Parts: sequence; C-alpha cells; structure tokens
Amino acid sequence: MLDLETVEAARDRVAQTARETPLEYSHTYSAMTGAEVHLKLENFQRTGAFKIRGATNRIATLSEAEKARGVVAASAGNHAQGVALAATRVGVDSTIVMPEHAPTAKVKATRNYGAEVVLFGPNYDAAAEKAHEIEREQDRTYVHAFDDEAVMAGQGTIGLEIVEACPDVDTVVVPIGGGGLISGIAAAVKGIDPDVRVVGVQAEGASSAAPSLQKGERVTIDGVETIADGIATRSIGERTFAHIREYVDEVVTVSDAEIAVTMVYLLERSKTLVEGAGAVGLAATIFERFEYADDEVIVPLLSGGNVDMNTLTTVIMRGLVEMGRYLKIRTVLKDRPGSLEELLAIASSHGANIYSIHHDRTSRDIELSDAEVELDLEVRGHEHAEELMADIRRAGYTVAQVA
Amino acid sequence: MLDLETVEAARDRVAQTARETPLEYSHTYSAMTGAEVHLKLENFQRTGAFKIRGATNRIATLSEAEKARGVVAASAGNHAQGVALAATRVGVDSTIVMPEHAPTAKVKATRNYGAEVVLFGPNYDAAAEKAHEIEREQDRTYVHAFDDEAVMAGQGTIGLEIVEACPDVDTVVVPIGGGGLISGIAAAVKGIDPDVRVVGVQAEGASSAAPSLQKGERVTIDGVETIADGIATRSIGERTFAHIREYVDEVVTVSDAEIAVTMVYLLERSKTLVEGAGAVGLAATIFERFEYADDEVIVPLLSGGNVDMNTLTTVIMRGLVEMGRYLKIRTVLKDRPGSLEELLAIASSHGANIYSIHHDRTSRDIELSDAEVELDLEVRGHEHAEELMADIRRAGYTVAQVA
Repeated sequence: MLDLETVEAARDRVAQTARETPLEYSHTYSAMTGAEVHLKLENFQRTGAFKIRGATNRIATLSEAEKARGVVAASAGNHAQGVALAATRVGVDSTIVMPEHAPTAKVKATRNYGAEVVLFGPNYDAAAEKAHEIEREQDRTYVHAFDDEAVMAGQGTIGLEIVEACPDVDTVVVPIGGGGLISGIAAAVKGIDPDVRVVGVQAEGASSAAPSLQKGERVTIDGVETIADGIATRSIGERTFAHIREYVDEVVTVSDAEIAVTMVYLLERSKTLVEGAGAVGLAATIFERFEYADDEVIVPLLSGGNVDMNTLTTVIMRGLVEMGRYLKIRTVLKDRPGSLEELLAIASSHGANIYSIHHDRTSRDIELSDAEVELDLEVRGHEHAEELMADIRRAGYTVAQVA
Repeated sequence: MLDLETVEAARDRVAQTARETPLEYSHTYSAMTGAEVHLKLENFQRTGAFKIRGATNRIATLSEAEKARGVVAASAGNHAQGVALAATRVGVDSTIVMPEHAPTAKVKATRNYGAEVVLFGPNYDAAAEKAHEIEREQDRTYVHAFDDEAVMAGQGTIGLEIVEACPDVDTVVVPIGGGGLISGIAAAVKGIDPDVRVVGVQAEGASSAAPSLQKGERVTIDGVETIADGIATRSIGERTFAHIREYVDEVVTVSDAEIAVTMVYLLERSKTLVEGAGAVGLAATIFERFEYADDEVIVPLLSGGNVDMNTLTTVIMRGLVEMGRYLKIRTVLKDRPGSLEELLAIASSHGANIYSIHHDRTSRDIELSDAEVELDLEVRGHEHAEELMADIRRAGYTVAQVA
C-alpha cells in the first residue's frame, strides 16, 4: 500500500520533468456553489496533463540496466505524451503503441517528445497487447498508465502540492479513470491529514469504481460512452481498487451534459481549456453530486487540458444547448416570397441572434419557397427559447426543436 | 503627457478592483521563435480583460459630487464590463449603452456587474451618441474607453507589472485599438527604462495607427474588417495618438489568419483562451512582423479573453484550415452503389480522420448515387491534403477544395 513517505520520496524525481502547477481561488465557482472553491490547474502541466508525473517517477526508479533497454507503453492519449517526454528527458528510449486511429495531433505530439510511435489495432486493448509483445521481444519495461505503485506515487505529488498551497482544504475532488491519480493523491492527502475528504468522480457512461466499491470487488463494465475520453475505462486497476477502498471517501458520477457545461464555464469564465476528463471534478462540485457545507474549502483537480480542437467545437455547442443558449430549430418556409424574412424578423424581435441558416435542399428543382430551413440561434435560456418558438408557431409555421 | 509617476499613482487605486495578472515564461513560443518569450496573461484579469484597470482609475479620481451623480459609458465589449464592475465596487451608479445587437452573454455579464444596460442603435457610434445624451441629461460623467489620461494611466499599471516580473525585458508587444492600453504601458515602461522597446500591433483590417504615424496626423479609415473585434476601431484617439508618437517604437499589423492560428496555438499549447484582440501581440511575435534577436526577451501582452463561444468555434476552424489541418472538399459521388465507401476508404488509407460528411440534397428525388458530397477531414498539413486529393482524383472523382 502506497504511503505518504513514498509519495514524498517521488517529489524530487518528478520535479525533473514536471512543474508545480498553480492552485487558484475561484470567485466564480465559489459564488456559484456557496463553497470556497480553489482550482488545481494541472491542465497547465507539461504535456498538458498529470500523466508525466507518474511516468517520470516510474522511469527514474528503473535500474541502469532497465533504463538502457528502454520502455514501452500503450496509450491513445496523455500517458503517451507523458512517457515520451519523461523518457527523453533522461535519455531513455521509448516506444509508444497508439491505436491506428489516434488523433493526428496526439501522434505528432508524442513523436515530438522523442518517442517512437507504433500505430497498431483498432483500440486501446489491441495497442496494449502489441505493447506487451514489444515488452517481451525487446526486453523493455512496460510502463502501465495507472496500476503501478511508482506511477501512483508520481501522481500523488499533486496531493502534496494541494495541501501545501491550501492548508485549509476540506475536500479534494479527483477524476477516476483507471484510478492511479486518485490513489496517489488520496495516499498523500490522507497521510498528511486523515480528515481531508477525498471524492472521486467518474463519467456516468464509464462508471466502474462505484459499482466495484459496492460489490466489494472490481467490476468491469461492458462498454463506455462519454465525451471524457481520458477516463473512458472499463474498469479500475487491481492495485488502484485497493487504494480507493482504503483511502477514498466517496465516488460519484457526472453526465456528459454536465461535463460539457463545465467545460464551457471554464472557457468563458476562467479562460482556461480543460479536457472532459479534467472537468469532472469541478462538474461534480457545481452540480452538487456530493454534499458540502457553506464555505467548505473544496479543491477540484483539473487534471488535463488536451482536447482535440474538433471535439472542442462539438463540446461547446453541446454545452450551450444544455445551458439553453443554443437553439436549433427546423421549420418549413411558407410558399410565398418574404417567408424567410418574416421568420428572421420574428427571431430578431426576440433578440435571438442568428448563428447560421441552413437550407436542406439542392439548387436543382426545389424552390426556395417550399424549402425546409434549419435555424441555429443564440438565446438567453430555455424560457426565452420557448417564447420564441411559440411566436413562430403563432405566425403559422410548424417548428421542431432539433437541439 | 502621461508620465511614470501618474501611472505609479494609479496603482493602489487600480488594485481596489483589478488583480495583478501572471507573467509566465513560455517554452513553446520561445522554441518557436528563438526568442525568450514571456506571456503577460491579462486574459485572467477580472471581467476577462484589462479595461477594468482604466475604468477603476477614472472612477476613483472623480470628485465625491461626480461619484454621486454616476457614470455613463458606451461599449459593445470589455469596457462595458470594466466600467460596470469598477463602478459597482465603489458604490457608483453606472449606465452602459450597448448596441442593440450586442452578444447576449456580454449584456448579461454587464448587468451582473451591477450596471444599468441601455440597448441602443445598430453600432458603437450610435451607442456612444446615446451615452453622451445621457451624460448631458443626467449630468453623469462619461467614461471614455481610451482617450482619457486617467484611463490610460490605469491601463499603464500593466507596464509596471511587466517590468517588475521580468526586469530583463527587451520588448513589450501590445495590441492597439483606440490606443489607451499602449499609451499607458509605453509611458510606464519608457519611464522606467527608455531602452525597452514598445511594439504596437493592429489587425490588418483595422489599421489606423501606422498610417497616422506615417502621415503625422490621425487617420480615420473607412471601414474595419477583422475577427479581433476588441480592436476593430476606425481611428486611434487624439490623446493616445500623441502618446503613441512619443513613446511607441514601432507599429505593425497581423492578418486575421495569423490571429486565428495564434488563438488555436494558445488553446492547444497553452490551454488558455485569448480573444482575437488579445492574441495580436503574440501573433506578431510568432509571425515575425517585427525584427528581433535570438534570445531577445519579448513580452506579448494577452490583453483579454472574452470570446463569444460561437465566434470561437468559427475561429478554431479557420485556424485549423490555415494550419492545413482542416480540409473541406466537395465531390460528386459516382452513379453506382459503394461510391461513398470507396471515397471514405481513400481518406482512411491516407490516415485522414473524418470530421463530418454532408450530403447537400433533400430526401425527395435525388438519389444518393448522384449526390454531391462535402467531406470535412482532419489532415496533417497542406502537403498531406494535396496527396489525398490527388488520390481521390486518380480514382475518378472531381474534387474541389472548399476550405
């Protein structure tokens, strides 16, 4: 079982490649929740996520012979970049197996950090199998993304930083994917002060920790479905399960909608980009997925900021829809000139700005006058949207809300 | 003429509402440019932009009688929020006139900061006229967004912070809209050390400062066209022109494409949201719009982070297109089954991920087999895009690149 001393021992090693990330009081989320919210901004970590801490500690604790033979890992995301940079910094050769369809940007980043990237298989499991094959064939050390005490201890250094920067902390809120991050942090935090509460958060569509705790044994779920790809795992690890049982007070879940809204808040209010997996802790706080007192000092960990730009645009739209600020309606224009103008005038009279207008027709044989039109509108909230649609219906149009 | 002492005198007043923002060394942009780049992160300022500094100083220097009568200002953006919060914090009544079609989010934020918002007119000029009317009728003090020494002095406190946090600074790079920000900063920085270079940056589509300097008198341009709405002004101010002539070493411009790419860099690499106007300083640095030496210590000022979420998604796409990472092509499917699959197989064999597929047809009388198809693809760069299109053509399709 990991303890405080082991995490403390990891600290100097981790500092070779990782930086101490800021912890900042947030007026916005404090006002929103009634608690005293401080954000741990690990999205500003090198490589954009916490994974480099664990990878660095793992590699630093290898023997010289093991270092000379190199490391291998499998990842579609942040662990790939973490291992690559951690290895390169200390002159260790690294091979990272990534699924064939891994985002170009992540493949490129991993190569730029000095790793040899092998693209293999349709998913993480296939890539991991290939990585184990390389481990055996080339006698490399396999760096697991979470189920490894040296990796957990590295991630745990975040816990030390949180308590140092915010000694009054009551509750730390941490994302759970495989569980390495929360295992390390909980071991550190509870070692310093057993009264600090540690809350774990998973995505609703990838919730294996809560059922595992309930059942008293590791549960593997059939499929995962969440926009928080960094924590889209089917089960937590063996070692991490033991640590979560021992150290974590509560495990809760948040929905994709809540994650998307939180990401939009973080952009709009905090001017900071956090990936889905990194936003779940704050989402659980904002949407009160766990109980807390007024003025309780809560530190949600924003664990990473690596978001694919295409995913980001989708998430923003999803978040705005959820907040009732983005309304997509479909209607059929009346069979006479001026119908589109009439429709736009109604929207305008409600102060609804137009994002886009889309005619779903070709230029061939359908007249503008009987075209179907999709309008994307900026509105002030759900009520405003309802009023607008009612007015459009009063003018004789059929309206369907698409999103 | 504003001098260092006046800016220093503003500092305690400004601190009543504004925070000292971080200045951070950037490994990414230093590696990119060969210079030593430190970012002044004013996008983390309260209200999301620097404007609150000047507004606070202006309001704090009012007489008690003036304070009791309240203030009025016109703005479609950051100045609105800055004046609102600055006034509310010291119990001064504020009325802000915003153009009728100002983004809902900005109107709401301004109201939340405690101002009475009057929506008036189609644009800033009309709103400003209305605000002057209110000034006269209600005997309020008009808080100008830039052409006012107390406002400039407030913005100038950023210059003090830059030199303190980065005493080795060689060059400060500052956005120019009306010129208040750069006037204050330049007065402060040159007062401390006349050898520090101050470079001003405007958007190509709103470039009035450079022609004004060249002509020796203020030039008003006919129209503005830029994604950097925060600096989309037709002319600099009278007072600011005098300060720019006196203190600023160089004024350059950047294109919208360069601004969009820089905003994407800031999101992807720095995990931080910066608005178009706030990104021009870094854009000018990255795209070498001014000359600098290796290892020169450059501080681009990221002046604000208030981006409309809809604008943001557009800018991201524009940025990716410019970087050659987003390819939009249009083609006509062959008149036989399996044609779409064939097309997708070609894209897939090139490792081009599909963002979206769009059939521009109705469900009525056009067969899938002869539909026009638009494909949005993630590619690695311009060369990769060319190879892919060549292969699609070899397979017998006509291809037009749409973006």
